[in-house]
Amino acid sequence: MSSDWKKETLGVGEWMGRMEAARHPMAEKLYAMYSSVTDGITIDPAMMFVPVDDHMVHRGDGLFESFKCVDGNIYNLDAHLERLEKACGTMEIDLPVTLDELAGITVQTIRAGGRRDALVRLLVSRGTGTMGVNPYECSCAEIYIVVYKLTKCDVGEMPAGVRVITSAVPLKPGFFATVKTCNYLPNVLMKKEAVDAGVDFVVSIDENGNLGEGATENVGIVTPERELLMPPAERVLAGTTAKRALQLAQSLVANGLLKCAEFRAIPIETARAAAEMHIYGTTPNVTPVTEFDGAPVGDGQPGPVAAALFEMLKNDMTPDSRRLTNVFDE
Amino acid sequence: MSSDWKKETLGVGEWMGRMEAARHPMAEKLYAMYSSVTDGITIDPAMMFVPVDDHMVHRGDGLFESFKCVDGNIYNLDAHLERLEKACGTMEIDLPVTLDELAGITVQTIRAGGRRDALVRLLVSRGTGTMGVNPYECSCAEIYIVVYKLTKCDVGEMPAGVRVITSAVPLKPGFFATVKTCNYLPNVLMKKEAVDAGVDFVVSIDENGNLGEGATENVGIVTPERELLMPPAERVLAGTTAKRALQLAQSLVANGLLKCAEFRAIPIETARAAAEMHIYGTTPNVTPVTEFDGAPVGDGQPGPVAAALFEMLKNDMTPDSRRLTNVFDE
Repeated sequence: MSSDWKKETLGVGEWMGRMEAARHPMAEKLYAMYSSVTDGITIDPAMMFVPVDDHMVHRGDGLFESFKCVDGNIYNLDAHLERLEKACGTMEIDLPVTLDELAGITVQTIRAGGRRDALVRLLVSRGTGTMGVNPYECSCAEIYIVVYKLTKCDVGEMPAGVRVITSAVPLKPGFFATVKTCNYLPNVLMKKEAVDAGVDFVVSIDENGNLGEGATENVGIVTPERELLMPPAERVLAGTTAKRALQLAQSLVANGLLKCAEFRAIPIETARAAAEMHIYGTTPNVTPVTEFDGAPVGDGQPGPVAAALFEMLKNDMTPDSRRLTNVFDE
Repeated sequence: MSSDWKKETLGVGEWMGRMEAARHPMAEKLYAMYSSVTDGITIDPAMMFVPVDDHMVHRGDGLFESFKCVDGNIYNLDAHLERLEKACGTMEIDLPVTLDELAGITVQTIRAGGRRDALVRLLVSRGTGTMGVNPYECSCAEIYIVVYKLTKCDVGEMPAGVRVITSAVPLKPGFFATVKTCNYLPNVLMKKEAVDAGVDFVVSIDENGNLGEGATENVGIVTPERELLMPPAERVLAGTTAKRALQLAQSLVANGLLKCAEFRAIPIETARAAAEMHIYGTTPNVTPVTEFDGAPVGDGQPGPVAAALFEMLKNDMTPDSRRLTNVFDE
């Protein structure tokens, strides 16, 4: 075998020097990282790495949560931590810290990053120690927390209406659809599908012909009978924003804008006849869909339920909300 | 928010010092790693890492191949590289090097590891540059090659008969089953299932009631009519060992031991009535299954086709085979 492409075995200094050079541009985007491997925080992007033998790296054998910190406040942190704990139970990954401790480490990592606006990725892996497939050969679970640039953080005004199409990417099987694991390739391909088609989002249709979810968003509709419906968390991920929106929507039932607001399977024909369609998520908050598979949704304009939900979620994120965790003030 | 668990922001020296301490024990298992991020090779386990923003780390958005180097020779390298190239095409990941260059870098990384017996993991990721889901925000594809300890390398004698059960883990959907991506959580859970049940392997059954595959192995049967059958690569991964075994089996058709040897869907009832069942893979080579879901396979003893295939594969791996790539001699 000829080796025209000579690669050198590098000493630590040279290896890290090249790493610093390669990773330097990421300093703009990556603010801080906590790793349980060192049990410390780094703000140097060249140090923000995961051992290659971590099962998360080579098998996607890990769980995650994403949330934002806006003006020094994390919204709905408890909901994210509780979902993570539940996911650890499903996947039989022993979370090595309490949720209180995890919240504490998260806050410290955001502080270390020094920005009041940031996104946070909380990753829990099966652990390091093997390149094989056997989870029992992994060490204890590892935690990685990455604090990075928040590109969109405008919560002041409801986003304009967006265009959505149905996705052709095969759905995650069974319970894999309901757990936020690092097996997110179907989601990556759905995002790619949206970009390739020049639309804002794609949504899946499940094997029963019911409306599913977006790449990293939930979807819901308002029927002409003024029912707010969201797919139950059987074939989709239980999104924290969607869940909170449905809770808040009960006041719209009380005041008569809605007849009901509930989780219920949505046949695709019902979705196509909707008066309103919404996208819910950490980044889109509540975003009205005005075009679905090329046809206008309702009258093709953002509807009153979207506007009402958006306002309520905005109020839910005000500094005096009990759903905020203040990061910078003691 | 109280912070009883104080985590410090570490300088590079302290961070890497802790990393060295934590990663030191892996020196026994991890021999060498090439990373395209540094475009060099390291033999220090503390340096064997992947940037956390690599899409492979947080989305499983990468592809891989596993193969072994036995007594300084890689078996069937071309088959692995060709499958990887095909997978890159399917996932629209631009492999940044030619297959010849990739083979050259692989050989150099094994050499750097200094062991004649090793396993090799070739990983190609979508790239670094974003914590988001959008693949277009990733930089170019990255390559990581890990050379690590080969625990079983006995190719001298056919393994004893093994016990297999059917799996309850949901199958990968559609084309995801046919590509070796880093979304390998279903495979991890299948391996876990086997360990938990105290058996050697589990095999899946697809939605049509046909025999599928193992966690990281293929499966095949010999019918009482002396047909060697393996599931077609529509709902399973096209294994290089299974594929080669089926090629070699044509000589058993010629000499009358088999009536035919082909890829054909295997209804589970047919599998349960098999005269022989085999497991194929990089580690198990050809391994006879003697018990399936608690019932004996055939007469409960390893069969003649398994023995013949094992001998042929063994010969295929002898030093003068054209299917070997010599790593250490120029």
